[in-house]
Amino acid sequence: MGNIIVGQSGGPTAVINSSLAGVFKSGKENGLKVYGMINGIQGLLEERYVELNKQIETDLDIELLKRTPSAYLGSCRFKLPNMEEDEQIYEKIFSILDKINVDKFFYIGGNDSMDTIKKLHTYGTAKNKNIQFIGVPKTIDNDLAVTDHTPGFGSACKYIATTVKEIIKDATVYDAKNITIIEIMGRNAGWLTGAAAITKSEDCSGVDLIYLPEVVFDIEKFVSKVRKLQKTKKSLVIAISEGIKNKNGVNICELEEENTLLDCFGHKSLSGTANNLARILHRKLGCKTRAIELNTTQRCASHFMSEVDINESFLAGAYAVSIALNGENGKVVIFERTSNSPYNIVMKSHNVYDIANVEKKVPLEWIDTENGTVSKELIEYIKPLIQGEVYPIMVDGLPKHLKLERQ
Amino acid sequence: MGNIIVGQSGGPTAVINSSLAGVFKSGKENGLKVYGMINGIQGLLEERYVELNKQIETDLDIELLKRTPSAYLGSCRFKLPNMEEDEQIYEKIFSILDKINVDKFFYIGGNDSMDTIKKLHTYGTAKNKNIQFIGVPKTIDNDLAVTDHTPGFGSACKYIATTVKEIIKDATVYDAKNITIIEIMGRNAGWLTGAAAITKSEDCSGVDLIYLPEVVFDIEKFVSKVRKLQKTKKSLVIAISEGIKNKNGVNICELEEENTLLDCFGHKSLSGTANNLARILHRKLGCKTRAIELNTTQRCASHFMSEVDINESFLAGAYAVSIALNGENGKVVIFERTSNSPYNIVMKSHNVYDIANVEKKVPLEWIDTENGTVSKELIEYIKPLIQGEVYPIMVDGLPKHLKLERQ
Repeated sequence: MGNIIVGQSGGPTAVINSSLAGVFKSGKENGLKVYGMINGIQGLLEERYVELNKQIETDLDIELLKRTPSAYLGSCRFKLPNMEEDEQIYEKIFSILDKINVDKFFYIGGNDSMDTIKKLHTYGTAKNKNIQFIGVPKTIDNDLAVTDHTPGFGSACKYIATTVKEIIKDATVYDAKNITIIEIMGRNAGWLTGAAAITKSEDCSGVDLIYLPEVVFDIEKFVSKVRKLQKTKKSLVIAISEGIKNKNGVNICELEEENTLLDCFGHKSLSGTANNLARILHRKLGCKTRAIELNTTQRCASHFMSEVDINESFLAGAYAVSIALNGENGKVVIFERTSNSPYNIVMKSHNVYDIANVEKKVPLEWIDTENGTVSKELIEYIKPLIQGEVYPIMVDGLPKHLKLERQ
Repeated sequence: MGNIIVGQSGGPTAVINSSLAGVFKSGKENGLKVYGMINGIQGLLEERYVELNKQIETDLDIELLKRTPSAYLGSCRFKLPNMEEDEQIYEKIFSILDKINVDKFFYIGGNDSMDTIKKLHTYGTAKNKNIQFIGVPKTIDNDLAVTDHTPGFGSACKYIATTVKEIIKDATVYDAKNITIIEIMGRNAGWLTGAAAITKSEDCSGVDLIYLPEVVFDIEKFVSKVRKLQKTKKSLVIAISEGIKNKNGVNICELEEENTLLDCFGHKSLSGTANNLARILHRKLGCKTRAIELNTTQRCASHFMSEVDINESFLAGAYAVSIALNGENGKVVIFERTSNSPYNIVMKSHNVYDIANVEKKVPLEWIDTENGTVSKELIEYIKPLIQGEVYPIMVDGLPKHLKLERQ
């Protein structure tokens, strides 16, 4: 039996290292040497990798790794060319893997990263290579096809919903008309913005309006909706996806007539979607408006993770090793939800060709843009994924993370 | 013995309700009826108040209140006129207080709010009124005079340092030149930005540069400093206070030649300080830059509070009641640090006239702008304040908050 190698790719998440821990621990328990690519496939091409068995030595190291945000091994955004375009790059990768006797290759990432698995598998199969390629899903965006949801999504939702709930408390503190617009990640898929909807509960009025990028955003209707709501409620909190677009497909942050800012040299300079909407509302309604962009913290906040998510992420890594040991190749670990109440999933493997480069969006019937709301189905879909908490291991008042020591 | 009333004023914090809980619990234990002003002095003037004994009924309610961010009673930004300018408003306040038989008045707030205590005390004394006025300090900005630090500062520091540590992990994940600028609250005082400096530890390289508003910010020196650092480190993370200014006292976000954006109608539109610096660095150095504004979450994130801070905030509220019961008037609760290692404070009361409207800044000898660092003293000052964690009471995956029921 050969060694295994694992890499991380694309945007980081709070739990991508939990999947790494799952691959490592399972590999180690099966007596295998586990290599880690530094900066994914891009680093591998430069022969940058580490022996993880020398880095992650104790059970405490594994627990720390699970709680360390962002990609422990470093990441990359690197798209392999098609094998017809450049066969050399494939030869190079396979020869490097041969050199360290790797016959199982795991890649933790989103749909772009699954393209890497697909292409390596295609090449390997065409050339009768003896290396298995397995994808482990990861993305806060939850836009991966086939799987019920993706590791990373639950923790991002928990962080977003918690933060939105806190912002609502903050926004409603003064006895004066005001509007807060919260911008949440999601260029084409509104899954994360859906998390803002789960704040509505006994102790929270929730967001007043919510807009996802799957449906055309109509500014005129939006403004009149806000005007109407203001008659009965002084403080309004609105959640929007960064990617909302008008009927011509133009992103709201790019709307010429409304937003384009020119710097003093006349160059275009775009401000964010929430900023732009806040500016429009201020001009049209006159009241105090403010924009809050949740930005990077959505994907790297690991001080308040979902227990369901971190456990599933770990198990997805371990499951990937088990299907590889069963001889599978060109597969991605997926989740199938067998029951929502009580919540239950089963893990399966699925052909990478159905998953690479495919983007899964929120079903249109779950979005009510006329009323600026989402359906109960979306809320019930998200809620089980944010249950339970995993807190950091604290040292001297701050979360302790595991750090890669360069060899 | 009369009743007591308590109000909250100014910007919310994560722990302002912990002080409210302290006032309430101590008042109740002393057999007093406790009123709460809705929206501070502004609401009181409209006779909007609640009986807190009817709102906060159980010990669990008190624990929930301590963990509820933002001002439970609502807040205001309301500056009382001098008594010479408008005596009527004072008469009105005192007659409302008389009506509900209040003889002890507590106000939880920052230096603007202490101005309210000062003025009410001045008026009460001049008119021989039988009402005591006591201030309970609160501000994430830590800019209150006399006291060693303010309730709210420690939790904000813990949240900022944790988030900055996570952002550093996120920023260093790709193998490419990039600069991240994190904008932290603080227009005139850089205390909160100091929290970014405590991230440097065994497992974290910390921020590479840090700039506080107390010292002139020189853009030329800054750019050349960054250029030099880039020669040895690919990913740089820089923390700045929102209020940094150049030698002419112009805020960096307002610098005409560098930043002013014109919208398509030619109107000025300012972007944030970090955004502006990121744009300048991108133009001068050519590499990828991004700006992250931590914004409102700094003051309302209550899912990860400092145990030291939440306890001190609670005790400050209780201490306020005890000094009122001892007959004090026109006083503010302050903290005196008697030892840093082990950390220890004592609470005292201090004349409100020394505290109202005074702004305490970071000592200049704690700031090294030449090297873009802060001194060990600032780090050692902050560290004890972020120790220990208080987590929310979780219900269905989200923090539970206490909600005021309008009577």
